[in-house]
Amino acid sequence: MATYKLTLGYDGTDFNGWQAQPGQRTVQGVLQEAWREITGETVRVTATSRTDAGVHALGQVVGIDSQSRLTAEKLLGGLNAKLPEDVVLHSVKATREGFHATRDAVGKRYRYQIHSGRQRPLFDRRYVWHVFQELDAEAMHQAAQYWVGKHDFASFQSTGSPRENTVRTITSIDVLRGEQPEQIWIEVEGDGFLYNMVRSIVGTLIQVGLGNRAPLWAADVLAALDRRAAGQTAPAQGLQLLWVKLSALK
Amino acid sequence: MATYKLTLGYDGTDFNGWQAQPGQRTVQGVLQEAWREITGETVRVTATSRTDAGVHALGQVVGIDSQSRLTAEKLLGGLNAKLPEDVVLHSVKATREGFHATRDAVGKRYRYQIHSGRQRPLFDRRYVWHVFQELDAEAMHQAAQYWVGKHDFASFQSTGSPRENTVRTITSIDVLRGEQPEQIWIEVEGDGFLYNMVRSIVGTLIQVGLGNRAPLWAADVLAALDRRAAGQTAPAQGLQLLWVKLSALK
Repeated sequence: MATYKLTLGYDGTDFNGWQAQPGQRTVQGVLQEAWREITGETVRVTATSRTDAGVHALGQVVGIDSQSRLTAEKLLGGLNAKLPEDVVLHSVKATREGFHATRDAVGKRYRYQIHSGRQRPLFDRRYVWHVFQELDAEAMHQAAQYWVGKHDFASFQSTGSPRENTVRTITSIDVLRGEQPEQIWIEVEGDGFLYNMVRSIVGTLIQVGLGNRAPLWAADVLAALDRRAAGQTAPAQGLQLLWVKLSALK
Repeated sequence: MATYKLTLGYDGTDFNGWQAQPGQRTVQGVLQEAWREITGETVRVTATSRTDAGVHALGQVVGIDSQSRLTAEKLLGGLNAKLPEDVVLHSVKATREGFHATRDAVGKRYRYQIHSGRQRPLFDRRYVWHVFQELDAEAMHQAAQYWVGKHDFASFQSTGSPRENTVRTITSIDVLRGEQPEQIWIEVEGDGFLYNMVRSIVGTLIQVGLGNRAPLWAADVLAALDRRAAGQTAPAQGLQLLWVKLSALK
């Protein structure tokens, strides 16, 4: 038995999320199917982030326990040849036994892409949230800084998949302007995230960007410990998992 | 009667090219249909560049003669609301009578996007040509400089739509590295282009990038005045029309 760590990207548009479900096209499903075609094995893949329907990934990390004797190099080439064009496998590495992509993740960085202004997006239309109004990115950045650090993020947890412990550490939030004036990127890095947390953060920052709220309001939302205090959950298609940091592996 | 100049972008992937054809989805077709829905008029749109199936545009320019009394602002909003998500209208301007988008274009710039290396492209997969090998962008740039200036480009004209006069002026060709190491952009600017000329230029430069030919070979290809001397025609999906320069308009 060997354990492999795989790093992959996908365009979430045409997937019903990460998690395998009967009769649905999911990233876990197509990955497990490709693995079966290459090795003959039926495996269950664990992922660091079980992304929702429509969410994308540049650097998702998954773990697979396997009896296969194929080299990591052969697995990489073979799997990429079988995977559909909206999934790209970046690397396959043999790792220590007991590696678990969910448990061993110690940090993650997400990017949320907004296209702001009247002009519709074109080439990146599947990867952005189109907000018709102009946004004040500087005010959004200022607001977001109230959330950096170790806090109870109960205000940013969607109902549906509640965690008992809602304390998490956000190590950075950056609201960045892209190459084009209409691009605004919100990058959030932390040790772990509650259900829909990044999308709730974005929906809250939008209220500041629109000028409906002052940046200091962000501190009130956090202190409320109540989902109703925050803004809407931003749409899935603007979100992508950028990368995952793992606890020290040999 | 008024004449309007429209600037628009489109994702060519799901179009059978620019030119209207019965029973085919074309950019001209959907634009004329949107115009009819907004104004009630049946018009014939002229474009600066009749792009082929699969070719994209950021700044295509078209002309329309119309009796409509709607303001340019109303036309812009109304048309954008009717157009599908893979066509974005940037501007509508009333211009002088007799304006003709094809005849009045004095310059155009195209970009050809290559994704080079073993790793498959993901988010930009509809807008690049995936070349598996690494390419020497500096050698390609050097080769391309032999073609800058006023020359007979008969070697770069595909059969199918031959022009008698094959002399054109290329004002610049730049082979650029993108933000990501796998991105190579070839930008070509000139006063006019023969059928498939940019794609033949790219297919020829690839031979230099792969190391199959030295940069100086580019001069021989030009001098041959024979399509068989040049490289293959690169695939349509990597090509996009960036912008059009028009003769002085009031």
